Amino acid sequence: MGTSYNYFSVTTAAFVAHVEINRPSKLNAFCEAMWLEMRRVFQHLSTDPDVRVVVLSGAGDRAFTAGLDVQEASQGTALKPGETEDPGRRAIKLKRYIEEFQDCITAVEKCEKPVICVLHGISLGLAIDIACTADVRICARDTRLAVKEVDIGMAADIGTLARLPKIVSSQSWVKDVCLSAREFGASEAAAVGFVSQVHESKAAALDATMKLAGLIASKSPIAVQGTKELLNHARDHSVEDNLKYTAVWNGAALQAPDMMGALLSVRSKRKSTFEKL
Amino acid sequence: MGTSYNYFSVTTAAFVAHVEINRPSKLNAFCEAMWLEMRRVFQHLSTDPDVRVVVLSGAGDRAFTAGLDVQEASQGTALKPGETEDPGRRAIKLKRYIEEFQDCITAVEKCEKPVICVLHGISLGLAIDIACTADVRICARDTRLAVKEVDIGMAADIGTLARLPKIVSSQSWVKDVCLSAREFGASEAAAVGFVSQVHESKAAALDATMKLAGLIASKSPIAVQGTKELLNHARDHSVEDNLKYTAVWNGAALQAPDMMGALLSVRSKRKSTFEKL
Amino acid sequence: MGTSYNYFSVTTAAFVAHVEINRPSKLNAFCEAMWLEMRRVFQHLSTDPDVRVVVLSGAGDRAFTAGLDVQEASQGTALKPGETEDPGRRAIKLKRYIEEFQDCITAVEKCEKPVICVLHGISLGLAIDIACTADVRICARDTRLAVKEVDIGMAADIGTLARLPKIVSSQSWVKDVCLSAREFGASEAAAVGFVSQVHESKAAALDATMKLAGLIASKSPIAVQGTKELLNHARDHSVEDNLKYTAVWNGAALQAPDMMGALLSVRSKRKSTFEKL
Amino acid sequence: MGTSYNYFSVTTAAFVAHVEINRPSKLNAFCEAMWLEMRRVFQHLSTDPDVRVVVLSGAGDRAFTAGLDVQEASQGTALKPGETEDPGRRAIKLKRYIEEFQDCITAVEKCEKPVICVLHGISLGLAIDIACTADVRICARDTRLAVKEVDIGMAADIGTLARLPKIVSSQSWVKDVCLSAREFGASEAAAVGFVSQVHESKAAALDATMKLAGLIASKSPIAVQGTKELLNHARDHSVEDNLKYTAVWNGAALQAPDMMGALLSVRSKRKSTFEKL
Amino acid sequence: MGTSYNYFSVTTAAFVAHVEINRPSKLNAFCEAMWLEMRRVFQHLSTDPDVRVVVLSGAGDRAFTAGLDVQEASQGTALKPGETEDPGRRAIKLKRYIEEFQDCITAVEKCEKPVICVLHGISLGLAIDIACTADVRICARDTRLAVKEVDIGMAADIGTLARLPKIVSSQSWVKDVCLSAREFGASEAAAVGFVSQVHESKAAALDATMKLAGLIASKSPIAVQGTKELLNHARDHSVEDNLKYTAVWNGAALQAPDMMGALLSVRSKRKSTFEKL
Amino acid sequence: MGTSYNYFSVTTAAFVAHVEINRPSKLNAFCEAMWLEMRRVFQHLSTDPDVRVVVLSGAGDRAFTAGLDVQEASQGTALKPGETEDPGRRAIKLKRYIEEFQDCITAVEKCEKPVICVLHGISLGLAIDIACTADVRICARDTRLAVKEVDIGMAADIGTLARLPKIVSSQSWVKDVCLSAREFGASEAAAVGFVSQVHESKAAALDATMKLAGLIASKSPIAVQGTKELLNHARDHSVEDNLKYTAVWNGAALQAPDMMGALLSVRSKRKSTFEKL
Repeated sequence: MGTSYNYFSVTTAAFVAHVEINRPSKLNAFCEAMWLEMRRVFQHLSTDPDVRVVVLSGAGDRAFTAGLDVQEASQGTALKPGETEDPGRRAIKLKRYIEEFQDCITAVEKCEKPVICVLHGISLGLAIDIACTADVRICARDTRLAVKEVDIGMAADIGTLARLPKIVSSQSWVKDVCLSAREFGASEAAAVGFVSQVHESKAAALDATMKLAGLIASKSPIAVQGTKELLNHARDHSVEDNLKYTAVWNGAALQAPDMMGALLSVRSKRKSTFEKL
Repeated sequence: MGTSYNYFSVTTAAFVAHVEINRPSKLNAFCEAMWLEMRRVFQHLSTDPDVRVVVLSGAGDRAFTAGLDVQEASQGTALKPGETEDPGRRAIKLKRYIEEFQDCITAVEKCEKPVICVLHGISLGLAIDIACTADVRICARDTRLAVKEVDIGMAADIGTLARLPKIVSSQSWVKDVCLSAREFGASEAAAVGFVSQVHESKAAALDATMKLAGLIASKSPIAVQGTKELLNHARDHSVEDNLKYTAVWNGAALQAPDMMGALLSVRSKRKSTFEKL
Repeated sequence: MGTSYNYFSVTTAAFVAHVEINRPSKLNAFCEAMWLEMRRVFQHLSTDPDVRVVVLSGAGDRAFTAGLDVQEASQGTALKPGETEDPGRRAIKLKRYIEEFQDCITAVEKCEKPVICVLHGISLGLAIDIACTADVRICARDTRLAVKEVDIGMAADIGTLARLPKIVSSQSWVKDVCLSAREFGASEAAAVGFVSQVHESKAAALDATMKLAGLIASKSPIAVQGTKELLNHARDHSVEDNLKYTAVWNGAALQAPDMMGALLSVRSKRKSTFEKL
Repeated sequence: MGTSYNYFSVTTAAFVAHVEINRPSKLNAFCEAMWLEMRRVFQHLSTDPDVRVVVLSGAGDRAFTAGLDVQEASQGTALKPGETEDPGRRAIKLKRYIEEFQDCITAVEKCEKPVICVLHGISLGLAIDIACTADVRICARDTRLAVKEVDIGMAADIGTLARLPKIVSSQSWVKDVCLSAREFGASEAAAVGFVSQVHESKAAALDATMKLAGLIASKSPIAVQGTKELLNHARDHSVEDNLKYTAVWNGAALQAPDMMGALLSVRSKRKSTFEKL
Repeated sequence: MGTSYNYFSVTTAAFVAHVEINRPSKLNAFCEAMWLEMRRVFQHLSTDPDVRVVVLSGAGDRAFTAGLDVQEASQGTALKPGETEDPGRRAIKLKRYIEEFQDCITAVEKCEKPVICVLHGISLGLAIDIACTADVRICARDTRLAVKEVDIGMAADIGTLARLPKIVSSQSWVKDVCLSAREFGASEAAAVGFVSQVHESKAAALDATMKLAGLIASKSPIAVQGTKELLNHARDHSVEDNLKYTAVWNGAALQAPDMMGALLSVRSKRKSTFEKL
Repeated sequence: MGTSYNYFSVTTAAFVAHVEINRPSKLNAFCEAMWLEMRRVFQHLSTDPDVRVVVLSGAGDRAFTAGLDVQEASQGTALKPGETEDPGRRAIKLKRYIEEFQDCITAVEKCEKPVICVLHGISLGLAIDIACTADVRICARDTRLAVKEVDIGMAADIGTLARLPKIVSSQSWVKDVCLSAREFGASEAAAVGFVSQVHESKAAALDATMKLAGLIASKSPIAVQGTKELLNHARDHSVEDNLKYTAVWNGAALQAPDMMGALLSVRSKRKSTFEKL
């Protein structure tokens, strides 16, 4: 709607924006331009008043994303040392490069609207980094997941190691898949709580996601966006800190008319509408 | 015993106190006087030497609690702005109100004795806030749970968003139920680890709870209360901080005669008794 | 290989070190000399360039470890007050003793190489403290586990209460087993995510562990050891702090030739070898 | 005004409340009833809309306070062990007692209105604990200060060791006065930044304090109370955390009309008045 | 040099960039476009290899900056509520606006090169926010400073309250100037450690600053930029966390040839040169 | 007494241990063996019951210490890369080396007894790292201090950047001396609070130090050592965390007879003696 992108298709209807990673010929693998663009996409949606929920999926049948476009990466200059560059200076430049990359992926987490990620098919490496920044993860039966980075000789550095241990249950499982880089499927992902729904096909997963997205989009955006913010704050703060932050947050938020509207709608059993946000 | 309350019945036997939310005619819904009273109940039990474990349940067949007494809330003055009050001053007053409310619920967590919460029937909104402050959660098959706040136009602000992500496994599930306000049942609650036992009826759940409470009450109160304190400390501190705090804690606690008593009882296979605390 | 120990047997092959707790006549129960020695074992392995993965198990059929050697503990002087020692001074001395003990067990966590712990048979008390410091936990069907400390009149102080709540899912379950000291078996341990594999026998568990250890040992040690370090850092830091630490870490680590080597090996489908670390 | 107290005199005029510690016959030494009462005083002032600034001083010429009433303390039961009480249980009871005491003193810090503390004469032990919880400290030339606790065989436990290192400059000085218990005077207190003004007499110090209190009381209470809250938050949080908390805080506070009122008054050079808070 | 700006003049020589706030006709007061531009200025300098130190000052004789351009602010739409906007939604929008503003000022702190701020004349409100993000502060005798925000009815929200308590000594002084909004001069600023040098005139202050900047610019940029980063990290982390971060940082940085070069130059007493960074 | 060292002389009298850095022929410069030995010295003193205060000074007239023995460092193998070592592996090895070095210096801070550091003459680089770990710093008029590391092409990594900003007042000054490596003298050190006393000569400084050490040694060791521990804890924790830790600490410590003894001695005006610790 208006904004157009090279690697992403974004369509919005009934307050739900659907973002598709759109490079199916390359299994939706990410080149540098793509992650820079993904940041712009989510920064825009974050404050777009016509959007209340974002659905993120991958175009095509085969892959959510195969991860980093290794071919492009190995041809690019980013990871190649300059002629006379010493290891100390090179480390600073690599650090800058990694931080920029991290920041692009973190933009999904910082999006003020809830993001539901739909995984299917090949979902390797960067796929996990990205999925970890979403609020809810839903997948198709055929999803093939792996924290693949160890297999290309590196520790994952774009977010998986920071977030994965905080969104699933078993640290024994987290260490297992991160150290061995082995593949795991939809059932295993559900068993450890990485995804909260598994569906028979990508289509079925998308359908269920759209239903959930629609349900959330029908609620007060003041309530929904506050809930996302307060849950994200909880992850990295003590219970007491979060309670205090919450009290300040709701000191303002409860002054919106949404609560009154929602209460009336509960009593009248009619659907209430809410102002944009 | 001795102390009597308006909205709670408290009975103590064999070191186990049973606290019942006692307003079944209103599905145990909470008015302001109730949460203020609940704080007094748990502050008293916290240091009552005749109590070693607390069981918390709801009176009647239908509900643990239906949550906030919305009718009372909408008639009360607490959430209504004064005539000429500006949004800045109103925010401060709402913050004070929320913090007082939070403090009453946190009193359950701060109780020095372990608290086991028995859920059954309708268990909505505030039910989750309260259950999250207990140490162990056990429920009946018929329990209907929901983080209901989004449905009344607000982000939960009494503790659910601060504590729920830290007591269950899957953050995908936490975001799902908190953003959608959808109901979930006993099996789902068990699958994600919110409750650790499900029983066929409220009566069966209470029986099993009393058995567990009795088992814990038979142990050294120095050991049991220390374990609760150290686990709660662990939630909000690093491993290293907790190890240091633990070493200082046990520097005193190990000077109680309980360890010697317990060791003797293990050898003699006789039940040991422990001094009150 | 070279270094020899009194209570542990250590054998290394193909970059995998196998550490056995070796006091089967006492069900591998720990006396003070053992935990002091265990620290030396893991400090050595931490920087031994011939080791990339460590497997930790207990000798004999009956027990990983029965925990603290209570008999030795009650005869020793460590826990007995001096004649005229007042409770204030005694608390300081107990604190020093506990901190030294904690430090010995923490040495397993600080080992720079991944540690896989294989549990079988009797695995009580200290067994849980130790298992919690490993990266991956695998067990045999016959494993009998318990956070036993409450039964000997004390709150666990060597690491279980600090780490267990951070490596499994359900806090309701954690409080249950820590407060009641009740036994739980392999299936329950798997269900809550404490272990990530259960096998029919100790032998089968060891086989599977060796396979996993071999797989991890075949990867780049720069990638594997970085992954362990960054995941451990994530546990006690915010996502943002971890991302920053990661960027600095990989600023150096990505300058190793391992990434290039691994990429070539992926393309050529030949196994790559990596320099020692 | 209205409320009356046993050990404190409280008078309010022009939005400034003056709280006097009023037990001059005992050099304003604190018995247990006094600190319990002090908590009630400050909890009341915290939300009293007629109060915008609080001044805290000691009645009489000789002392702000001589600290703990040691005589009462040694006669009381609080610090005496029960007949058969073991050191483990006794430690828990002492901990409860200390925490209650700490909470009473912390009530000064939690008071939403700025508190200016005027020190004079004897100001020992508890005097420092209390002064550390105020926002601004002003003293008379004759003030004699000491972190006296080491001289009575204990480490200060009511707040000095927690707060003093965070409110003055030199940690070498903090350790010196806390470890040696030596006295220091007004000039030294000013040099290290413990007090921000020194005056020739108690009367002169009170005069200057009332002038400062009046100046602050003439400002927008939304601005003043927000400033206190945000500065206190800054002490225990990272810069980034504080910036985020501030943005949420001012999201509501800037909706008060005070900013517009203050801007108009700046332009018209007339004094503006502000609504109560 | 190349890049040109509307409100800032930037000149670079001998590795020192001089940034001047350049709107002297308005006493260098900040409109929104200016803080957005200031972020671009410092983001550019942060990685410009020809820059090793940045000097920040205000053009003209009268002011470093008079702070916010209040006239523009009161005409702009940013702080005015929309027609039908409720306080809840308005709070979110104000929060977004404040966070963007904060981010622009924080860009000075995030600049990888040391920033020395030269204050003179009128230096109010935003002047303090900005100065607090610099590494070193130097001022002219005529500097007139004030944390002015309380006088316009608001708590400072762009960084002063987050950073000022962490860069000077006396919290009694910090609370005094922040709550009263009173002016203070160069001597007082030096006495509390806000500035580390005072000079007779702006010209003299700039001269001394350029000398210090030149000295720092003559050192190894690997050493200097590492020192800035590690000191900034120290502010918001524990000593232990900082030591660990430092060890990882220098693991790479010590591989630069700068140490060898510097040691040789010390011995040969010749000035060494260092590669760009 | 008993224990003897190669690079340190340690003499103990009247509960005060005097540790001298004893390599005056090399201006007390540190080679690797020295910092390893210094750790052993302070680990021993930490629990030696005959020691209540430690004084640390440098032998000879010319230097406390000239810092790192650069000659030895440049000949040693520690900082030289292996033939074929890549920058990734080299970074890990440097990190291990730095962490070991840091740990040796941190041993001074971890010593349970207060440490007073006496500085004189040349006190460069490592001198600051070491002095920062002491509790109190006292210096002679002739002391010449510098955070020298930037001059040898590196950011200080043994503790100065972690601790210096937390023990003095002005961050503008901290950044100035750390970024420029310029020398500063006794008066400047006193003005910013780095040292708390300046004396005319090394002899006078030592005399004054011994007097202070004797005063502290005459107090209850339970009180003194608790005070050190609680102040060190305060530095890296929130006020609330520290208050809680303090309450647990004193729950045990107040059970020592020292308080009663000290109170009696205050009344009888006779010097009390205390049991060893």
